[in-house]
Amino acid sequence: MKATGIVVEYNPLHNGHVYHAHQAKETTEADIVIAVMSGNFLQRGEPAFVDKWTRAKMALESGVDIVFELPYRFATGNAPIFALGAISLLDAAGCSAYCFGSEDGDIEPFQNSLDLINLSKNEYESAVKSAVQDGVSYPMALNNAYHSIQSYAEKDRSLADLSKPNNILGFHYMQAALSIDSTMKPATIKRLGADYHEKDLIAKKFASATGIRKSFFSTNTLEEVADFIPPATKSMLSHWKAERGQFGNWDTFYPYLRYSILRDGPDRLRHIADISEGIENLIYRAAQKNNSFQTFMEEVKSKRYTWTRIQRMLTHILTGFTYDMRSEMDEPAYLRLLGMTNDGRTFLNERKKDLPIPLVSKVAAYSDPSLDMDIRASDIYALAIGIDSGCALTGLDYTISPILINHFEGRSFK
Amino acid sequence: MKATGIVVEYNPLHNGHVYHAHQAKETTEADIVIAVMSGNFLQRGEPAFVDKWTRAKMALESGVDIVFELPYRFATGNAPIFALGAISLLDAAGCSAYCFGSEDGDIEPFQNSLDLINLSKNEYESAVKSAVQDGVSYPMALNNAYHSIQSYAEKDRSLADLSKPNNILGFHYMQAALSIDSTMKPATIKRLGADYHEKDLIAKKFASATGIRKSFFSTNTLEEVADFIPPATKSMLSHWKAERGQFGNWDTFYPYLRYSILRDGPDRLRHIADISEGIENLIYRAAQKNNSFQTFMEEVKSKRYTWTRIQRMLTHILTGFTYDMRSEMDEPAYLRLLGMTNDGRTFLNERKKDLPIPLVSKVAAYSDPSLDMDIRASDIYALAIGIDSGCALTGLDYTISPILINHFEGRSFK
Repeated sequence: MKATGIVVEYNPLHNGHVYHAHQAKETTEADIVIAVMSGNFLQRGEPAFVDKWTRAKMALESGVDIVFELPYRFATGNAPIFALGAISLLDAAGCSAYCFGSEDGDIEPFQNSLDLINLSKNEYESAVKSAVQDGVSYPMALNNAYHSIQSYAEKDRSLADLSKPNNILGFHYMQAALSIDSTMKPATIKRLGADYHEKDLIAKKFASATGIRKSFFSTNTLEEVADFIPPATKSMLSHWKAERGQFGNWDTFYPYLRYSILRDGPDRLRHIADISEGIENLIYRAAQKNNSFQTFMEEVKSKRYTWTRIQRMLTHILTGFTYDMRSEMDEPAYLRLLGMTNDGRTFLNERKKDLPIPLVSKVAAYSDPSLDMDIRASDIYALAIGIDSGCALTGLDYTISPILINHFEGRSFK
Repeated sequence: MKATGIVVEYNPLHNGHVYHAHQAKETTEADIVIAVMSGNFLQRGEPAFVDKWTRAKMALESGVDIVFELPYRFATGNAPIFALGAISLLDAAGCSAYCFGSEDGDIEPFQNSLDLINLSKNEYESAVKSAVQDGVSYPMALNNAYHSIQSYAEKDRSLADLSKPNNILGFHYMQAALSIDSTMKPATIKRLGADYHEKDLIAKKFASATGIRKSFFSTNTLEEVADFIPPATKSMLSHWKAERGQFGNWDTFYPYLRYSILRDGPDRLRHIADISEGIENLIYRAAQKNNSFQTFMEEVKSKRYTWTRIQRMLTHILTGFTYDMRSEMDEPAYLRLLGMTNDGRTFLNERKKDLPIPLVSKVAAYSDPSLDMDIRASDIYALAIGIDSGCALTGLDYTISPILINHFEGRSFK
C-alpha cells in the first residue's frame, strides 16, 4: 500500500479541503492519505474552532485515512518549525509522497527556488537575519532576501512566488524534507476558491476557513456556510454547538488569557516561550486595561511584530508553555493516532512494526514531555470552551480512543 | 486624640460588627476606632463576598473612623502571621489600645494564659511542633499543648479557653503585641449572637457573616438577611448585586482556580506558597476531574490538612503567590489607607508626620513588592467577579482614592 501525506488544520474542514485530499491521492497515485493535523491550538496562534477529535472525524469522513496529531510544540511554532514537525511525522509514518496546496500549483518552480536558495544559502540567511534585526517582520525579510538572490539567478528558470502564504509554507515543507533527508516526493495542487486572506464568503462552493468562521461569528448560525462545507462537517458543527454552546476563538479564551497575564505579571511572563525584548511589560499593561481581545491586541500590536507572532506568544501564555519546556522538545518523538478509516488501519497494521518512532494509541501507555503538553493544551481548551455550559470536558485524551470509521462502497458506518 | 484598633474582615459587615466597633471605642474610652481589614482575599483562604472598597465603606458607615488594608501576605496567612500583620499596623498607626471579640469576653484569662505560656514557652513550642509532625492539625496541636501545660499550672488563675476560634485569634493578637514590644493595651468584648461556626440565621438580630453568606447563596436574595445587617450595608450589597451580578465565593472563582492548576501542572504548583509534601499532585489530578469546587475539595481534603489550610493554598494558586514572592515580605512596611471619616482624617493629620512607616494614599506614588501583590490580588478578584457582566473592573487600586465620609450629628453625608 502506498500512502501520501498532507498537512492540515481543518479549522473547520470545507469543500476546498475535500478537493485537496482527493487530488493529493489521485496526483500521487496513492492508496491512502495520511494527515498530520494541528491539535487544539493552531499555527497562526489561535484556539481551534472545534476540538481535535471533532476535526479528525471531519477528516475521516472527507477523504483522509489516518490522522496523526501534530504536537503542540510544532503546531504553534513558526512556519519552519511547523513544517519540520509535520514533514518529520509524515516521513516517519511511511508516506512515499506529500502534497500541499499552493497558489502556484506546480512543483517545478518550488524545486527551482529550493535549488537556488541552497546554492546561495549563506547569503540568503544572513540577509534574512540582518533584515529581522533591523525590525523587518520575518515573512517580509524572507521574501526580500529571496528576491534579492533571485536577481542574481538565471532568468530562464521559473521560480515560486514566495510572497504568497501557501507557497511559503510549501517551500518550508520542501526545506524540511531536505533537512531530514526524506525520500518522500513532493507534489502540489493549486488551491481553489477564496484567497487565504479573504474574509468574506464568495458566490461559489469554495470558501476559506477564515471566511467560514467569520460568517459564523457574525451571524451565529451555520446556515450561510452550509454550501461551503460537506454535510458531515455541518452535522458535526451543529452537534458541537448544541452541546458546548460556543466555538473557539480568541474572544472565547480572552478572559483566561487575561487572567494568566495578571496572575503571572511581567516577571513570570518573561519565561514564556517567544516572549522577549520587554514585550511582557506591554502585554501586562494592556491586560490590566482592556476588557476585549480586540482592544487588547490593538494596544500590543506594533510594527516590530506580526499579528501572528503576537498571537503565538499569547497562545503560549494561555497554555503556560515556557522556554524551559520547549527546550525539552527537539523533534517529533511519537506518532499520536487520533483516528483512521478501515483502509488506514490496514496500512498501519502492515507497517506498525517498522515505524521508527512509537505509535501512540493510548496516552496513558506512553510518557513524553511533549505528549504531556498536548494533554494540557486539550484540558485548557476544554475548560474555556465548556465554562458557559457548565461542563468542561477535561481529560478527553485519556478517555477517547482513536476514532475508527469504516467506509464501504463510498458510504460510511460508524 | 486617642485611637483604639480593631482587626476585621467584614465579609459582609453585620449588626454584631457594629456592636463590636462601638463597644471597642466605649470600653477603651477612645475618640476614634481604627480598623485593619483584609483585602479581597481572607484569612480562611477565601475570596471576599464583596471587594475591599465596598467593605471599607460599610465600616465607615458603622462606627469605624479609619480603614487600613491588611496586605495580602498577612491577610491570607495562618493565625500567627495574620495577627502579627494586623497588630503591627495598629501599633504603627498610633493606637493606644486594641480590642478583639472573643467567646470569653474578659481580658484577664487571656493575660493569664499568655503569662503561663511564656513561662513554659520551650515546652509549649516543642509540643506543638511534634504534634504537627505527627499529622495533627495546627489548631488542634495548639489546643492540646496548651492543655498539657495548663495541667502543670496553678489552679487558682482563670485561663482563656483556647479551643474557641475567636479566643485563639485574640490570644495570637496578644502574642504578636508582645513580640513587637507594643505599648498598646489589650481589651476584649464578648461576641454576641451566632457562634462563629453556625451557618444558619437565628431568630434575633445577630447572625454570623457565614450565616449571612449562606442565606444569600441559597436564596439569591438579600431579603432574609436584611434584619441582621445595617441599612447602609444592605444598600451597598444591593448596589453591588445590580452592578456585578454576583458575589464572591469559591464557586465563582473555581473556573479560574482550576485553569491555573491545569496550566501550571505539578511542577510549577510546587513553587506556590504553602504547597508542600506532594499535595500538588493530588490538587492537579482533582482539578483534571472535577467540574465543581465542592467535589474538587472533597477529593483534596485529607486528615493531614484542615479545610482552611487547603483553601489558603488554593488562594495562593489563584493569585500566583509563590514562596519566592512571600520571602520578600517580612513585616508590614506601609499603612495603605482605604478610607476615613472626618474624625479619622483629623487624627491622621495630627499624627502623620510621626508615623514609623509610610502612609500610602496613592498606590502609584509608592513601590513595594507587597503592595504590588495587593494590586494583583485586586485585579484577579475584579476579573473573575466581572466576567459575567462583561466588565472586569481592574486597576481600581490606581483609580479609587481613599474614601472620605463626613459624619455630623450622627448622620453621614458623602
